[in-house]
Amino acid sequence: MLKGHQTWIFENRPVLHSCAAIGGPFEAAGPLSADFDLLHEDIWLGQNSFEKAEKRFLEEACEFAIRKGGLKKEDINVFLSGDLMNQIISSSFAARTIGVPFLGLFGACSSSMESLAVASALVNGKFAKYALAAASSHNAAAEKQFRYPTEYGAQKPPTAQWTVTGAGAAVVTDSGDGPYITSATVGRVVDMGISDPFNMGGAMAPAAVDTIQAHFRDLNRGLDYYDMIATGDLGKVGHRIATDLLTEHGLKINEDIFTDCGLLIYGDNKQVFAGGSGCACSATVTYGHIMNRVKKGELKKILIVATGALLSPMSYQQKESIPCIAHAVSIEA
Amino acid sequence: MLKGHQTWIFENRPVLHSCAAIGGPFEAAGPLSADFDLLHEDIWLGQNSFEKAEKRFLEEACEFAIRKGGLKKEDINVFLSGDLMNQIISSSFAARTIGVPFLGLFGACSSSMESLAVASALVNGKFAKYALAAASSHNAAAEKQFRYPTEYGAQKPPTAQWTVTGAGAAVVTDSGDGPYITSATVGRVVDMGISDPFNMGGAMAPAAVDTIQAHFRDLNRGLDYYDMIATGDLGKVGHRIATDLLTEHGLKINEDIFTDCGLLIYGDNKQVFAGGSGCACSATVTYGHIMNRVKKGELKKILIVATGALLSPMSYQQKESIPCIAHAVSIEA
Repeated sequence: MLKGHQTWIFENRPVLHSCAAIGGPFEAAGPLSADFDLLHEDIWLGQNSFEKAEKRFLEEACEFAIRKGGLKKEDINVFLSGDLMNQIISSSFAARTIGVPFLGLFGACSSSMESLAVASALVNGKFAKYALAAASSHNAAAEKQFRYPTEYGAQKPPTAQWTVTGAGAAVVTDSGDGPYITSATVGRVVDMGISDPFNMGGAMAPAAVDTIQAHFRDLNRGLDYYDMIATGDLGKVGHRIATDLLTEHGLKINEDIFTDCGLLIYGDNKQVFAGGSGCACSATVTYGHIMNRVKKGELKKILIVATGALLSPMSYQQKESIPCIAHAVSIEA
Repeated sequence: MLKGHQTWIFENRPVLHSCAAIGGPFEAAGPLSADFDLLHEDIWLGQNSFEKAEKRFLEEACEFAIRKGGLKKEDINVFLSGDLMNQIISSSFAARTIGVPFLGLFGACSSSMESLAVASALVNGKFAKYALAAASSHNAAAEKQFRYPTEYGAQKPPTAQWTVTGAGAAVVTDSGDGPYITSATVGRVVDMGISDPFNMGGAMAPAAVDTIQAHFRDLNRGLDYYDMIATGDLGKVGHRIATDLLTEHGLKINEDIFTDCGLLIYGDNKQVFAGGSGCACSATVTYGHIMNRVKKGELKKILIVATGALLSPMSYQQKESIPCIAHAVSIEA
């Protein structure tokens, strides 16, 4: 049911039945490596293009999530997925392989929680017994499409972020012992006029804040409700801006519980500049590291606020600023 | 509720509260011109790029649908939209203008019914009082991105189709006198190995047939249930293939009720080769012409089967065939 203007409460308590995270060599070298289900040494995955490699990451994440849940592909009623590639070819071609009913989504890096929110709504509304939600990104494929091919060796400013290579997937179903997906807040597009594609974190921070505000306003809930509030890929720059903006708006968030998947995934590695990004950033950190902490009992109530920068190279070339969005999903053990 | 493996029945009877169709000069010259809410003589709409013009078409369709429903933007709980542009910038930038919670979708030309299906599921599940579903396309923007800039004057084969310039939008709500959105069948990706981007109708026909078969199988319904079954943009070539495939599969469909939005929109105009295509093809024909016929009482039960070709220029260059999909939505007066 709808609470407030933009928050969904899942009163039938859909369950996050199983999930999986797959990463590449750079993710394997990071502090969360033990939380991945599979890590590849080769960013090509034996394919002849980065795009095809990304599709394989996504297929593997889906296969693992299905298998870990003791299910078969045929059990899945609907597959929801999004990615950064033009016409979301990673998702569409993975959907061809998986062969189940498919709804393609695009929310840039917010696609991870967009797919989980809609999957949960469909399960809650009894339109699916099993819904599969996923998202993927690939560093080299994203660099080629959005910036410069990495072979050019172009310099980057310190506000730049590093696109995660990998994919995350989750199966949502209508019954079980939890963890439960309890609510979702659908974000509005927020654009503060930033047009620098090397400062995505700064551009996206106001969208994250807008959605966090809406979530707590709609649910009339205190900021101390959650054990962890994790944004998707704001990185160092965006995380600081978001913290400041929340304080300005009277939402004094405890710094111990407020974090960002883009800060967690690579730790202090200076090579990633301001932190991780890409659809796979929040997808792999949530479905790997964070859900493992939930399963261990370290976290009981979490809010994932996946952020997305909805630009295209074309919109940037046409001097448009960057419209941003954030979708939040709460998961409770 | 779920019926069979992939069909949703909307037991709370969401209502297609209001809808609108906006077109360009080529659509104004076609046989359905009287069914558009607004027709523009200028494909630029006063903008300095085709992409920005497409965004304006989409914004106008949404504004008309909201206004015709006696509503304001603030009443809309969620806006669902998709288009053909890379990173669906038409939808994302229109969402910035409209300023309501946004879920971006991508199903290529099936986005029209994908957005209507998900909007109806959200209203049925009480996650939205008012949901806005839309889709857009622009001939010149699509030609530039997927084929050649029109200024090149490249020759096309007779299987090619003409991307519709325009947008369609609908407001779905939880009560009213109808027409009601009664069910939706989510399609699977079907790929028969066709890799010619100038024969989209031929590529998409098997996906349309797969979804039509699933719809009637899941609902255990006879083919004579509907007054009209309209596919999205199969055009002359695809429509003939779909008719033949249905017959082969033992589904003898009455030719008087089986049509295609891509055949309807431009009539016998030879300049469009095999017919219309693009997200706006099924969106404008459904939300203009067909819904006007429903309102007049000429049609009582219709099934729209929007078809989508999920390729990208990159996937085509990498020698991939074209994965296709179709989503069906039934509307009953």
